[in-house]
Amino acid sequence: MRVQLNQINPKTLSFEDNQRIILSCLNKTNDDTLSIFPELSISGSPLFSRISYNDVFSFSSFVLDSLIKEKRDVIIGSALKIEDKKYNSLVFLSKGEVIGFSNKKRLSIFDEGFSIGNGIETINYKNETIAFGFMEDIEEFLDTKPKITTLILCSNTLFTLNKQKEVLENISIIARKLNANIVFCNRFGAEGGYIFNGASCIVNQKGEICALFDSFKQESEVFQIENIKKINQNALSHYKKILEGLSLSIRDYFDKNNIGKAVVGLSGGVDSALVAALAVRALGKERVIGVLMPSQYSSSHSISDALLSVKNLGIEHYIVPIEEMFFSCSNTYNSILKDNEFSLAEENLQSRLRCVTLMFFANKMKAALLNTTNKSEASVGYGTLYGDTSGAISVLADLYKTDVWLLSKFINEEYRKTANSSIDSLPIPANSIEKAPSAELRYDQKDTDSLPPYDILDKILMNYIDRSKNIEEICKEFDVEGIKVEKTIINRVIELVKINEWKRRQCPMAVKLSNSAFGIDKKFPIS
Amino acid sequence: MRVQLNQINPKTLSFEDNQRIILSCLNKTNDDTLSIFPELSISGSPLFSRISYNDVFSFSSFVLDSLIKEKRDVIIGSALKIEDKKYNSLVFLSKGEVIGFSNKKRLSIFDEGFSIGNGIETINYKNETIAFGFMEDIEEFLDTKPKITTLILCSNTLFTLNKQKEVLENISIIARKLNANIVFCNRFGAEGGYIFNGASCIVNQKGEICALFDSFKQESEVFQIENIKKINQNALSHYKKILEGLSLSIRDYFDKNNIGKAVVGLSGGVDSALVAALAVRALGKERVIGVLMPSQYSSSHSISDALLSVKNLGIEHYIVPIEEMFFSCSNTYNSILKDNEFSLAEENLQSRLRCVTLMFFANKMKAALLNTTNKSEASVGYGTLYGDTSGAISVLADLYKTDVWLLSKFINEEYRKTANSSIDSLPIPANSIEKAPSAELRYDQKDTDSLPPYDILDKILMNYIDRSKNIEEICKEFDVEGIKVEKTIINRVIELVKINEWKRRQCPMAVKLSNSAFGIDKKFPIS
Repeated sequence: MRVQLNQINPKTLSFEDNQRIILSCLNKTNDDTLSIFPELSISGSPLFSRISYNDVFSFSSFVLDSLIKEKRDVIIGSALKIEDKKYNSLVFLSKGEVIGFSNKKRLSIFDEGFSIGNGIETINYKNETIAFGFMEDIEEFLDTKPKITTLILCSNTLFTLNKQKEVLENISIIARKLNANIVFCNRFGAEGGYIFNGASCIVNQKGEICALFDSFKQESEVFQIENIKKINQNALSHYKKILEGLSLSIRDYFDKNNIGKAVVGLSGGVDSALVAALAVRALGKERVIGVLMPSQYSSSHSISDALLSVKNLGIEHYIVPIEEMFFSCSNTYNSILKDNEFSLAEENLQSRLRCVTLMFFANKMKAALLNTTNKSEASVGYGTLYGDTSGAISVLADLYKTDVWLLSKFINEEYRKTANSSIDSLPIPANSIEKAPSAELRYDQKDTDSLPPYDILDKILMNYIDRSKNIEEICKEFDVEGIKVEKTIINRVIELVKINEWKRRQCPMAVKLSNSAFGIDKKFPIS
Repeated sequence: MRVQLNQINPKTLSFEDNQRIILSCLNKTNDDTLSIFPELSISGSPLFSRISYNDVFSFSSFVLDSLIKEKRDVIIGSALKIEDKKYNSLVFLSKGEVIGFSNKKRLSIFDEGFSIGNGIETINYKNETIAFGFMEDIEEFLDTKPKITTLILCSNTLFTLNKQKEVLENISIIARKLNANIVFCNRFGAEGGYIFNGASCIVNQKGEICALFDSFKQESEVFQIENIKKINQNALSHYKKILEGLSLSIRDYFDKNNIGKAVVGLSGGVDSALVAALAVRALGKERVIGVLMPSQYSSSHSISDALLSVKNLGIEHYIVPIEEMFFSCSNTYNSILKDNEFSLAEENLQSRLRCVTLMFFANKMKAALLNTTNKSEASVGYGTLYGDTSGAISVLADLYKTDVWLLSKFINEEYRKTANSSIDSLPIPANSIEKAPSAELRYDQKDTDSLPPYDILDKILMNYIDRSKNIEEICKEFDVEGIKVEKTIINRVIELVKINEWKRRQCPMAVKLSNSAFGIDKKFPIS
């Protein structure tokens, strides 16, 4: 059997764009081939509440009808209305006819609004008994102990850092259980904070990987299933995966929403320097604008480090001192309130005026602001709402500070390998990585004034947020590892996570990298 | 059988507070009585990701053990770990022992992390065969055609405007099917945008309502089930329900989070006047602060109407003109950008400086800002992110503008019935209700410059958002009703809903009143 495996990146509800992508794949092969496309290729996904609207189904049918007219052999994911029921369906087309459906049975959280279907279907195709359906429905199918030669699984599996390994292991097990070849067709691309995992593959009946696509790009290739042989997979390294995933999420956000340019507020710190470097990688230097907003509390290295970022990345930049605006506001307020004491309100005021400034520049340039909050800050609410928590998309919000440093070093290392470079030309200035983190909202402020050192903080947070450990269990972990941390410190960190949920609820969508991304996987009560 | 029906308002994860509330109910009656409490009374709810933490279960068990020691007859909702499985459970205590559990089987979206239990349980109690369990598990229980005298259902049913009617009708049907008395025990109170429905009731085997609590307050009453008789229910009017629900949500948000005061930006418009009036009703006038922030584009009535709000509500207020700050910022920006054209950026700048001002005042006064965005604005993105979309809780975000007007009139009417009042002393100034809505961000701006009139806009939105109709279907609706609206206008409104999802994702949590509250029920794709 000849199959064409198509790993595409549909754009949600852009039916014409998706139709064009699908047709261009079909045009690369011929009538003898069964072309396979991912789940919901025609409408894109996630559809959320749009599943309850009829037009999604009429537009999908319209595109499906046009594909039928191509008289080709195709398995493709589409929203489909059958007798007034709405399904997340895989449609099997052959020679101008629909020869089968597999409607998803085990609905996921993204399928709310779809009806429950019949799961994986078995069909005779070119004198073989094959089956096709959704990854989610595999368990029930295995229970029926089917006898098939090939199983085609389509999916919209999301990316997380360990997902590829999990998926491949799982598919190998299925292949051996069924003694059948498995064709796994997944989408790639990013949509609203979600990255899809790509990594479509073919696994033979021995469980050996015989074809494997990249996670982060479009691929379309024809395979003669009987002839495929085991390949060696080259897994990406941990930080390479993060780098590619984050770059893709920025690129897709801007391109799918037709936003020309990205604005980044450059503080000289590592978070904003990293986001600027990622944005340049994703969009190109012409589409990234750096804005420096020094105040009376900014150290000299804040400006010089930020300017080094600008220079090394080759991006347009502006310097907008906020001191005058700060005094214009605070003098007005304090004359009314008769209160001149420098407090949290004055610290937040600086951060909020920076947001006002960045949004003004973004509005004028029809650009979108990139948020630079990392997961450590988001966890403990170390940031000002309507200040540095702002932006259209939060690039680092699922990456702890210790990972921000390591990813920055990785990017610099990668750069040094490929370019004839000096330390002064690194994408992320060495001093931004090495200096002690500071919000610089009052004189000589350091993050460690209010938080434990990041190696300790992140260890507490990983235990509390990613592993759902409570305080007693975290204390035990530290004891076992021989790390001395007072219980009161752990308790305070957990308390901060708890009381800052209301802030996180108003933060931009985070790019999900883990199974515990805020706003997607992890939600705490507000009161 | 003597039962004590306890409609309480537990505070999420405040185990000691909840224990105190439960004990004070038990102290109101004696050993002969079966005291019934709602779902998750011990931990409060919704627990979201906290369900996956062990401490929730150890704290719950601790409180449960203390209740066992009371040696009373009690049915109470608690998170419960049984042999390493985590359940949303109802525990039946009698004379110092646990005599039964009903663990929820049909898990809702709030139960993610709980294991699937056995559903409604039948038990012999005081020589009667009774059953107890969760409202969600009723269907499966009915299928078993049980023979019981009384069914006790506990719940955390959410409030929406039609919920009470639906619940009572449903319970009547169940009572008649079972030929049994039903005791329905629901919680009341608000938590993070959710309002619970209260309205606990007893319905006899004929399906007649024999006891019915209010939706919005704590009630605890003893009934001899054999003696209860049909009562006449006094349903609250539509706007009275909205008024009570919104007031409760403000009060619970501030009290449960220990926030002393509320700040409201008063523009002279109806939305902010209404929110201020609701805040005074919820918190008392001493806890509400009005801030007026006139600019060069403010009309004279903006200030006079806002001052009338302040006077009639008797609240503290400040006047903070933003003109000077505006020019300090825009002059700085424009000198750098060499661009003096008045654009959207300048409009947004005013709105954002108002947010900066309100947050400064809120920070200084350890207060929280109330957001005043209505559902019409939230739908079409008529508002400035980090400007007038800001606040800790969004009071009106599930109420269309046409309802904002009607609710305001209702409040004024209610006030005129109870007080010896003149038109000048109304809680919501008549002129704020009557004048044409305007954002006043440029000279002589009106909402209708960029939007259709609100009666048309809201009709489109209700069809699109609440009823999930697409454009063709909405056109048909208007045709049938004989209302002339061009298709391009409907299309533009729908397009605005679509492209503003990214803004709504960053808006404060909305108080849910309908089945289509943004951020809770209704979610659109971002790209």
